[in-house]
Amino acid sequence: MPTISNKGREIPSSPIRKLVPFSDAAKGRGVHVYHLNIGQPDIETPKGARDAVKNADIPVIAYTHSAGILSYRQKLAQYYHSVGIDITPDEIIITTGGSEGLLFAFNSCMDPGDEIIIPEPFYANYNTFARMAGVVVKPIISTIENGFALPSIEEFEKVITPKTKAIMICNPNNPTGCLYSEEEIHQLGEIAKKHDLFLFADEVYREFCYDGEKHFSVMHLKGLEDHVILLDSVSKRYSACGVRIGAFITRNKEVYATAMKFAQARLSPPTYGQILGEAAVDTPKEYFDAVIEDYVARRNTVVEGVNAIPGCFCPMPKGAFYCVARLPIDDSDRFCRWILEEFNYNGETTMMAPATGFYSSKGQGSNEVRISYCLNVEDLKKAVKCLEEALKVYPGRTN
Amino acid sequence: MPTISNKGREIPSSPIRKLVPFSDAAKGRGVHVYHLNIGQPDIETPKGARDAVKNADIPVIAYTHSAGILSYRQKLAQYYHSVGIDITPDEIIITTGGSEGLLFAFNSCMDPGDEIIIPEPFYANYNTFARMAGVVVKPIISTIENGFALPSIEEFEKVITPKTKAIMICNPNNPTGCLYSEEEIHQLGEIAKKHDLFLFADEVYREFCYDGEKHFSVMHLKGLEDHVILLDSVSKRYSACGVRIGAFITRNKEVYATAMKFAQARLSPPTYGQILGEAAVDTPKEYFDAVIEDYVARRNTVVEGVNAIPGCFCPMPKGAFYCVARLPIDDSDRFCRWILEEFNYNGETTMMAPATGFYSSKGQGSNEVRISYCLNVEDLKKAVKCLEEALKVYPGRTN
Repeated sequence: MPTISNKGREIPSSPIRKLVPFSDAAKGRGVHVYHLNIGQPDIETPKGARDAVKNADIPVIAYTHSAGILSYRQKLAQYYHSVGIDITPDEIIITTGGSEGLLFAFNSCMDPGDEIIIPEPFYANYNTFARMAGVVVKPIISTIENGFALPSIEEFEKVITPKTKAIMICNPNNPTGCLYSEEEIHQLGEIAKKHDLFLFADEVYREFCYDGEKHFSVMHLKGLEDHVILLDSVSKRYSACGVRIGAFITRNKEVYATAMKFAQARLSPPTYGQILGEAAVDTPKEYFDAVIEDYVARRNTVVEGVNAIPGCFCPMPKGAFYCVARLPIDDSDRFCRWILEEFNYNGETTMMAPATGFYSSKGQGSNEVRISYCLNVEDLKKAVKCLEEALKVYPGRTN
Repeated sequence: MPTISNKGREIPSSPIRKLVPFSDAAKGRGVHVYHLNIGQPDIETPKGARDAVKNADIPVIAYTHSAGILSYRQKLAQYYHSVGIDITPDEIIITTGGSEGLLFAFNSCMDPGDEIIIPEPFYANYNTFARMAGVVVKPIISTIENGFALPSIEEFEKVITPKTKAIMICNPNNPTGCLYSEEEIHQLGEIAKKHDLFLFADEVYREFCYDGEKHFSVMHLKGLEDHVILLDSVSKRYSACGVRIGAFITRNKEVYATAMKFAQARLSPPTYGQILGEAAVDTPKEYFDAVIEDYVARRNTVVEGVNAIPGCFCPMPKGAFYCVARLPIDDSDRFCRWILEEFNYNGETTMMAPATGFYSSKGQGSNEVRISYCLNVEDLKKAVKCLEEALKVYPGRTN
């Protein structure tokens, strides 16, 4: 019997999914599980966007242009203009979700053995895509004490080697919810310029900024037109995760042409998703206002609730819909499993993602969990209550 | 300015697309271009399948299961049962087109430096996906003289090394249209078993078999359950290329679990495409009967037409909707460009794909072109006429 790849063997299971068998078992025992482990919004996809798919009358669902339907790229350029980013349709490749954009970025810019610096904790799947491309992730730690702010220039320069080819950020950040300031983005740009590195930015949570904070994109950096690659997605913006539509955007013509080779190999992005994405650009501002208001209430419920539990600490995130909380526990993998397997409070319990899965450095995150606040406020209150009660009786409690 | 990857630099442009600027220029000069270069069928996507998308009422277009919607996998198992292949829903991962299935196969089974044997000419994008995974393609030549039949066991064994991990076939074949016989598939199975190799089979043209020939799937091989990976797609079967839905299928539990790690990293396949794919399984037999009748007429028009041109040879393919023809020319790249740039017959010309792009071995295919017969018979007749007239005046004609 032929053996699987070492690569396949080494990739860890997804931190947000590896406990699913235990949550399924809990449900099997009649325990209600609050899913704070996944970033699947419960918000409706805008009706206008869904109707565009319903009303599409296409006799032959053919391949589209490999870079995506031109009218969608034109519309998307309008969207970017509306958020202060000037790009043209021929600087955009529509991708199959933000995920595919990552694959294009790694493969177009980096060779096997090349290194990419990513502040950790980071979105766990970056690791998988990096390994698929043979790219080595060099993590640098951002800490919960200062709200997971961008590490200093010195921290970046400590790990830069001749093999370093790129820096990657996610802003606002999954899993921390940290929104990098304009100053931090400028600082990143300086490092990229000084060391001639690509700067990959995952900005799929751009619209989710709270407390009046404004998002500052890497696309605003002057003089870094050849360094910057923007990775985007409609999944979270329009609560349309299932359409699998994202974008790979760069002003670097050589990178664009190279990414197009990979785009042509996979032929085209999904047609129906592009139709939805194009129509979604016309979603009225009121939709986002209501969504943001919802998320602020949810965030406050979770963060204030967790901080009120003795021994817990959770910085107040300014963006996305995640936070990372430090709990008085010995081992977040053990705790997140225990709370599903052995605990319930009035027939309910809470599922969270152990933060260990979001760190590349061994041992980090063992007293932290990622909480996604995609549920309604009432459910979130009950979920936090479960967490509070669980911590009272968890055998591995540390203080 | 940071430099792109060597990998990206080395990947050749797509043979079916690299001449698009020249066909665009021809159109700009008012010349009508017959597109025999691309495999985009003009057949209607079944209405029932399209209506399923129209009628879907999903308020939140959420991620689906990473392996695909369960009801779709169940339906797909029924489809496979109907073509004599017994697999269960948990042996299927729905992929984003057949393309993604290739990436899953390469990454789950093979490490960088591992070798895969593929009879050439082969679908050019296999090369790109192999390079993305660091896999080395070892081509063995199938020849036009015997209709691109499977090379002998000896030819395979000549290139097997300790690094050989897999054999890959496409059956019916793109670009040759060759349909491998049951005997040939058994022969492949023997090699895979003897040398403990994975056997990847791209069977996306399964329904397109002509002249009463029957398709024999690698899934029918006994005792090779752990070796075989089937790659499939709805693109051609239902003329639904744009939905980007395929399938990765294996009975090997370890390979399946590993492929699921990659599937989870990219979250899920497109929702709308899965809805269409599920409904498409109910497409009535009459649809396929009509399609097959169309394609046989098209094939005969092209193959008989080409063989009637002095100096040309085209074996009669038994499947898919491509053929490879040998022409009396010096250089297929030069000819395919010349016919767009410098030739027209009554204001019309014909676009074909130079076969060089389907060979990995340097110098092969320089007097061959791939012809896709996805147009109606009248247009195909005119396209062949253009080819005939072009060969009369092409300056690089060889005999």
